[in-house]
Amino acid sequence: MDGKTSPLAVKLPELPPLAGVRLGAAEAGIRYRNRTDLVMLELAAGTTVAGVFTSNRCPGAPVDWCRAALRGGQARAVVVNAGNANVFTGRAGRETCAVTAAAAARLAGCAAEQVFVASTGVIGEVLPVDRLTAALPALHAGLRADGWEAAARGIMTTDTFPKAASRVAKIGGVAVRINGIAKGSGMIAPDMATMLCFIATDAKIPAPALDRMLRKGVDTSFNCTTVDSDTSTSDTVLLFATGQAVHPEVPEQGGPLLRDFGAKLHDLLRDLALQVIRDGEGASKLVQIDVTGATSARSAKRIAMAVANSPLVKTAIAGEDANWGRIVMAVGKAGEPADRDKLSVAVGGIWMAKDGGVVPGYDETPVVAHMKGREIRIAVDLGLGRGKATAWTCDLTHGYIDINGSYRS
Amino acid sequence: MDGKTSPLAVKLPELPPLAGVRLGAAEAGIRYRNRTDLVMLELAAGTTVAGVFTSNRCPGAPVDWCRAALRGGQARAVVVNAGNANVFTGRAGRETCAVTAAAAARLAGCAAEQVFVASTGVIGEVLPVDRLTAALPALHAGLRADGWEAAARGIMTTDTFPKAASRVAKIGGVAVRINGIAKGSGMIAPDMATMLCFIATDAKIPAPALDRMLRKGVDTSFNCTTVDSDTSTSDTVLLFATGQAVHPEVPEQGGPLLRDFGAKLHDLLRDLALQVIRDGEGASKLVQIDVTGATSARSAKRIAMAVANSPLVKTAIAGEDANWGRIVMAVGKAGEPADRDKLSVAVGGIWMAKDGGVVPGYDETPVVAHMKGREIRIAVDLGLGRGKATAWTCDLTHGYIDINGSYRS
Repeated sequence: MDGKTSPLAVKLPELPPLAGVRLGAAEAGIRYRNRTDLVMLELAAGTTVAGVFTSNRCPGAPVDWCRAALRGGQARAVVVNAGNANVFTGRAGRETCAVTAAAAARLAGCAAEQVFVASTGVIGEVLPVDRLTAALPALHAGLRADGWEAAARGIMTTDTFPKAASRVAKIGGVAVRINGIAKGSGMIAPDMATMLCFIATDAKIPAPALDRMLRKGVDTSFNCTTVDSDTSTSDTVLLFATGQAVHPEVPEQGGPLLRDFGAKLHDLLRDLALQVIRDGEGASKLVQIDVTGATSARSAKRIAMAVANSPLVKTAIAGEDANWGRIVMAVGKAGEPADRDKLSVAVGGIWMAKDGGVVPGYDETPVVAHMKGREIRIAVDLGLGRGKATAWTCDLTHGYIDINGSYRS
Repeated sequence: MDGKTSPLAVKLPELPPLAGVRLGAAEAGIRYRNRTDLVMLELAAGTTVAGVFTSNRCPGAPVDWCRAALRGGQARAVVVNAGNANVFTGRAGRETCAVTAAAAARLAGCAAEQVFVASTGVIGEVLPVDRLTAALPALHAGLRADGWEAAARGIMTTDTFPKAASRVAKIGGVAVRINGIAKGSGMIAPDMATMLCFIATDAKIPAPALDRMLRKGVDTSFNCTTVDSDTSTSDTVLLFATGQAVHPEVPEQGGPLLRDFGAKLHDLLRDLALQVIRDGEGASKLVQIDVTGATSARSAKRIAMAVANSPLVKTAIAGEDANWGRIVMAVGKAGEPADRDKLSVAVGGIWMAKDGGVVPGYDETPVVAHMKGREIRIAVDLGLGRGKATAWTCDLTHGYIDINGSYRS
């Protein structure tokens, strides 16, 4: 972090304590100096957990550990380090996870399988686990209910601002809280834009219901965003329910009782996902792509992501050029059903291309003004069916090349 | 074109005349000034043709025209313009193709369905077809057997050097010639074909045999290259056989008689494909990715292309950083079978990562030297099977952002 904050940064929201969660950060000196790089969360007994992870076929050792730990459906602690991803580190990487979990379990008084671990940073370097375990006892002793901001800062790598969100939802008329923190992408010389997100609620929700809501929520938030089309080996979203709130009992598989909670969770996930995009490497503009009229929602999402991932669309946006021809190209290359002669494209709410041709004499003035702003809206209507989806990305600038083309730090 | 030639440019080879082809270029003033922008080829009666086109679902009107014309299997003329792609131009675009073909047919004394048309350049602007037809008669009158270089230059848009290749093959002991020209620099991720490429031979080869050889050749040449993952709406490769050479008769479906011809055609296609990558927008390094040990050739190709399309791999190469962690990430995100603990990665012939971890104490000196060169070799071994494939790309530099963030193409 060189102090150059993303122009799209948002202020850290207030993060009130949440019953059943104590957390904090410490300086373990794993890679960085003079900043916190180790975070611990302790969770009340009975906390349920759901998680989603990277689809990358070469995941980091912590992802493997979490996937196995998830089978128990119970969580008592989380340990996160920044600066070393513990990816492609072979047997040493697996041992690091086991040693970390065992050390945290001793402190939290639980089984190692109830400890979740996550790491982001450089790939292929063995993590100095002794520094991590040496720092844990003091970190654990200092955990606090109001440690959310410290945790949000401690998990950052090349992020230029900390990312967090908080919501209140009702379950059977009872208010419960949802807090979440995330990290992802940044300035300087990262090895990879890697995304981590930790969410907790004081609600009492069985693991299967939690899992169902998390998957549904992630599908239209984090999974609809892209900075550079490169899927990290460490992506992790974990959702913990401490069960400290007193509300009507939630059935194993969820149901109508969770309607408001699900909506608020989704809102929080989208908030965090957009904060990550706002901190996209080199980003100067946040871009939303709304696709309608596709043959299915799945098809609409693929088309929206094809536009969001197109280097030609993203560089045009960086150049403040409402280049709808490149949008048409990106729609066509998605491989999804599309009929050139029924396709319409709008930028900033102005339909520029319609029914297979340019809209004659459309007013370019508001479009030019829109392109100069920080938030760009693109709309694509396929004119084929009712499928719709929204994706988010950032523009592709010289900043991205600067960050990723400079030699590894 | 600002006169700044790609540092990876190659010299235009000698392009001897080829019996049955006369060609040339003219200034039609369609978009550019003071340069040729209109090219015509006239082909001898009896010329057979094969073609492959973009897989983009929003193809340009000329692609539609060529697909229809191909059904006849006969070609007598080709008209190509640079600077306007005639894409997303609705009914006007279709009429432009018909008017162009009719005008060329009158000059060549053939049916309009025996004329092939191609256009690249800006998308969504109606092509001023009257300027094109006005320039055609003088262009036709000046066609020459030695007009190959003029044609190679006349089809360029943002290319920084003209692209051509020539080969001699034997059919039944008789030497035949194959000449090809190509253009392309950005929006390059040929999925089925390339930007524009025109190849002619004086051999006498039935259309079905021609088609089979072209598809096979393109699959491991143009279709294994990428500049920016963006598949153009105009990609076209056309192969013409004028039948002027006297050699043993080639059966309808080809066969052993075409073995040498097929090999030389493939060699020429790869030559042209690599010339396009060498002129990739902003390219400073040519990158070859060899994948071995995959579960199938198809899987190997997908993995090679995932590495070739990764912005993080491409920016690392621009920064002369042999960042194998990003290569592992790109292999993993391909979605193909991969086992992290069996995966090996080499750069410049040096295996840096093996069996799920970094190779302890590998000699970095030759790797650092290799990364400073113009041609970078990456090897990935999956350790799973016998599938292999090779892909080519260029690095991702500030030049790409400069070109696409400011210029409407």
